[in-house]
Amino acid sequence: MAGKSEKEKKTQEGITAKKDTDFSEWYIQSIIKGGFVDYTAVSGCLAFRPDGYFAWEVLMRATDAHFKEIGIQNVYFPLFIPERFLNKEKEHVEGFSPEVAWVTHTGESELEERLAVRPTSETIMYDSFAKWIRSWRDLPMRLNQWNNVVRWEFKHPVPLLRSREFLWNEGHTVFATEEEAELEREVVLGIYAKVLKDVLAISGIVGRKTESEKFAGAIATFSIEHVIPGGKIVQGPDFHLDGQNFAKAFGISFIDKDEKKKYAYQNTFAITTRELGAMAAIHGDDKGLVLPPKVARIQVVIVPIYKDENRTEVLKAADTLNMKLGEAGTRTFLDAREAYSPGWKFNEWEMKGVPVRIELGARELREGKAVATRRDTGAKISIDMNGIEEKIAGLLEEIQEDLYKKAQKFLADSIHVAKTYDELKKIGDEKGGLIQVVWCGDANEEAKIKEETGFKTSNMPLDMQKDVKGKCFYCGKEGKHVVNFGRAY
Amino acid sequence: MAGKSEKEKKTQEGITAKKDTDFSEWYIQSIIKGGFVDYTAVSGCLAFRPDGYFAWEVLMRATDAHFKEIGIQNVYFPLFIPERFLNKEKEHVEGFSPEVAWVTHTGESELEERLAVRPTSETIMYDSFAKWIRSWRDLPMRLNQWNNVVRWEFKHPVPLLRSREFLWNEGHTVFATEEEAELEREVVLGIYAKVLKDVLAISGIVGRKTESEKFAGAIATFSIEHVIPGGKIVQGPDFHLDGQNFAKAFGISFIDKDEKKKYAYQNTFAITTRELGAMAAIHGDDKGLVLPPKVARIQVVIVPIYKDENRTEVLKAADTLNMKLGEAGTRTFLDAREAYSPGWKFNEWEMKGVPVRIELGARELREGKAVATRRDTGAKISIDMNGIEEKIAGLLEEIQEDLYKKAQKFLADSIHVAKTYDELKKIGDEKGGLIQVVWCGDANEEAKIKEETGFKTSNMPLDMQKDVKGKCFYCGKEGKHVVNFGRAY
Repeated sequence: MAGKSEKEKKTQEGITAKKDTDFSEWYIQSIIKGGFVDYTAVSGCLAFRPDGYFAWEVLMRATDAHFKEIGIQNVYFPLFIPERFLNKEKEHVEGFSPEVAWVTHTGESELEERLAVRPTSETIMYDSFAKWIRSWRDLPMRLNQWNNVVRWEFKHPVPLLRSREFLWNEGHTVFATEEEAELEREVVLGIYAKVLKDVLAISGIVGRKTESEKFAGAIATFSIEHVIPGGKIVQGPDFHLDGQNFAKAFGISFIDKDEKKKYAYQNTFAITTRELGAMAAIHGDDKGLVLPPKVARIQVVIVPIYKDENRTEVLKAADTLNMKLGEAGTRTFLDAREAYSPGWKFNEWEMKGVPVRIELGARELREGKAVATRRDTGAKISIDMNGIEEKIAGLLEEIQEDLYKKAQKFLADSIHVAKTYDELKKIGDEKGGLIQVVWCGDANEEAKIKEETGFKTSNMPLDMQKDVKGKCFYCGKEGKHVVNFGRAY
Repeated sequence: MAGKSEKEKKTQEGITAKKDTDFSEWYIQSIIKGGFVDYTAVSGCLAFRPDGYFAWEVLMRATDAHFKEIGIQNVYFPLFIPERFLNKEKEHVEGFSPEVAWVTHTGESELEERLAVRPTSETIMYDSFAKWIRSWRDLPMRLNQWNNVVRWEFKHPVPLLRSREFLWNEGHTVFATEEEAELEREVVLGIYAKVLKDVLAISGIVGRKTESEKFAGAIATFSIEHVIPGGKIVQGPDFHLDGQNFAKAFGISFIDKDEKKKYAYQNTFAITTRELGAMAAIHGDDKGLVLPPKVARIQVVIVPIYKDENRTEVLKAADTLNMKLGEAGTRTFLDAREAYSPGWKFNEWEMKGVPVRIELGARELREGKAVATRRDTGAKISIDMNGIEEKIAGLLEEIQEDLYKKAQKFLADSIHVAKTYDELKKIGDEKGGLIQVVWCGDANEEAKIKEETGFKTSNMPLDMQKDVKGKCFYCGKEGKHVVNFGRAY
C-alpha cells in the first residue's frame, strides 16, 4: 500500500461548514465538493456532473413511465418563442417578461422580431394546439415535454434551488370539459408525490397556492412544498388549472358533440431539477451528500484493504465481489486506486454520498465476511459472503425507506401552528419551517405580512380545508383556509 | 356503422405528391400530414408530435444504453456560452459564428457580454474539463449530453433534414494518449451504425471527411452518410478526432505518470434528429410514412369491421385481441371510432405509417382468424387467433429486417463509379446518389468541382482506402483516396 501521497494531501478537503450552524455554505459545499454539480462561467447556470445528471435521469424516467401509463405522450416544441406570442396572454407575459432572455441577433443579422428563450412553453405550444384541435374527437389531448427553460431572475442564484436555466417536464393537457380537467389534478400530483418518495425519498405538503402566488395565467395552482434544513421553504412540483384563459387567448376551440363551438379547458404541470437540490439539502450531513440508493449512480463502493503480502488475494476477492454484486443488478465501483489510502477513499465516497461502502481485507476473507457501512447512519454490518448480493440489495431498499421516513419526520417536525400574527413572527424567526395558521383569505393581509416580515404563503394543505374552524390569525374575521407561511428559497 | 360524415369528407386529404417524381414535396407532406412533426411560427424550428418524438426517444434510449455499456456518463451543461469562450478556438468560432443565435438582453437589461445559444458545447464544457482534470488518474473522462442546439443557417430550412434547432447527443471524451483517443472511433461509429440498423432500419457509408469538410476545430472527422430518394446525400452521425486543439485552447492538461504536464487528446461525436428525416425519406411511399416497428409508437392498429347486427360481437372480439397483443408487449391501438368508415381509417393509418393493420370482422370471427396487412409491402396475411400474439411479434421483427434489407439495397444501388470528371457530372445529374471516384486529395480540385457542379465530397469510405489503385479522375495524378461525391441536403 502506497503511503499518503503529496497529491493526496494537497487535494482532499472535506466539507468545512456545519449543516446545523451554516446551512447555506454547507449546502453549496456538499453539492459542489460532492461532485454532484458545478458552477460554470455563466452565472446562475450549472454543469450537472455524472452523479447529478444520473439522479435527474432516474427521476425523469420514473415520472415519464407514470405519465405514459396514464396516456400522456411526449412531444418537443421549439426553444424560441416569438415576442408577439408571449404577449397574447396578459397575466402570463407580465409574470414572465421581466425574466426573459432575448435573442435579438443571429450571426451578423438583427432579427425582425425578438425571440424569447422559453421560460415555459404555453404560448408556442398553444398556437399549434389551436391548429391540431378541431373536434371533440381530438380531446383529451395530453402532451408533455422534457426540456430546458431559462428564467433570468435577478435574485442571487443558488445552485439547483434557484438556477437561471433548469431542466423540467412541462405537461400540457387539453380537455373538453372543466370536470375532466379537474380530475387530472389528483392523478398528476399523486404521480409527483410518488416519485418524490420512491426515487428521491423526500416528502412535501400538497396544497393549493393562494391567489397571489398562483401561476401567471392560471385559474388555480397546486403545489408540493418542501421544508429544507435551515428552515426555508422550497416549492416543489406544481399543477395549474388554466381554465379557458389560454384557450381564449390562443383560439383553442372545438366543435362539441352538440355541434357547438366551445373553448377547451387546459392544465399544465411540472417537476424540475430543483428537486435534486431539495433532496441534497434534506438528506446530507456534515460529511457531505447522502444519496438515496435509487438515484445513486454508484450504490456500493468496495474498498480493498491490504498489505503487500496479501495484495493479490484481497484484490482478487474484491474483484469477484464487485462482479457478483454487479451481476445482481447493483451499481458498484471497486476503488482499487493505489495512490490513495483506505481512509482517504472513505472520506471521498462519504462526501459523494455513496449509500454503502464495503471494506474487504485479509481478516474478512478469512472469516468469509465483508463489512458494510451505511452512509446514512454510519452503522457497520458484517455480512456473510454467501448470498451477499441479496443482503446488499435488501440493505439498499432499507436505506431508501429509512431516508424517506427520516425526511417525513423532519417535515412533520417543521410544521408549527400559530394562533396570532405575533406567534407567526416569533415561531418563524426562532424555528423557521412552515407556520400554519387559520386565515380569512384576504390578499391584502398576505401582501402586508410579506412586506413586514418576509414570510410568504407556501400553500393551503388540501387535507385541511374541510370545515375550517376558528378566526383569522391576522384580522380576527371568520377563518376560511388553513395556510402555511414560511421563508421561501 | 355511420355513413361518411361531412367532417370525414372535408378533413381527409392524402399525400398528393409522388415520391418518385416530386420527392421534396412528397417528403414534406409525408412527415407533416403523417403527423410526425409540424411547422411552428418560428421558421426552421419544428414541433415534434407524439409519433415523431417517440421515434427519437427510442433512438436516444438505444444509443444511450450502448454508451453506458462502454462507460460513457451523461452530464448537462448550460445552454448559453459566453462570447469570449466561443472565440478561444479560431477555426471553431469561424465555423460557427455566422449561425449563432445571440442573447443580448435579459428582461429590460442589456447583458455586458453577449451569450451564444449553443450551436455545440465544446467551449462551455472544456472550460469545466480544464478545472476537473488534473492528473492521469482523472483520465479517460468520457462524458455525453442529450440536448438541443441551435444553428441559424440562412439556407432554406427543410424539416428534420435541415432544422435551425435540433436535438442530438454530443459526446465529449478526453484521453491521456492519442492512441486511446483513436481507439474510440471504431467503437462509437459501430454503436451509431448499430442503432441506425436496429432502430431506424437504415444504413450508411462509413468514411472519413475530406480536410475541407471536417468539423471546425477537429484534426479529422468521420461520418456515416445516407443517400435518400431523390438522390441527395444526408450526412448522418459523425465522430471527430480533435487531437490537442481544444486542449491547448482551453488548458486541458494533466500531470502524467512521469510527473510531466501534458495536453489531453479529445474526441467529440453526435447523432441528431436529422436521422428521423432520413428514415422517413428512405422508407416512406406514395401513401405516406412507413415506420419501422421499433420506432412506431403504434405498431399495430386494429380496425373492427361490423354491421349493426354484429357490432357488439365484433367490438368485443377486437377489444380482447387488443388486450392480448398489448399484454404480449406490442404497442396497439383499437380504432373503434364510430364516425369514420374502415376505408377512411385504413388511409389514415397508412399515412401515419403504422406497420401492421389488423382487420377484424364477422367472417374473421367465424373462421377464428384475423387479416393482417403489412404497411411496407401491402401484403395481407391471414393469422389464426390462437397464438396470434407471437405471430404478430414475429411479423413485426420480419418487417423491421425487411425494411433494413431494402434500405441496404437502395444504398448499394445508389453508388455509381465514375472514371472521369465528365462521367461524374453525367452520372451525378442523371442518377444522383453517391458517385465514387479515385482522387489525388487536392482540396483545390474539390473546391473547383463544388463551384462548377454543386457536387460535394460526402466521405472517403473507410473500407476502400487500402491500396488505392488508379489515377485521379480529375487531374490524372496518382490516386490516393476513394471518395464519394454527391449533392448534399
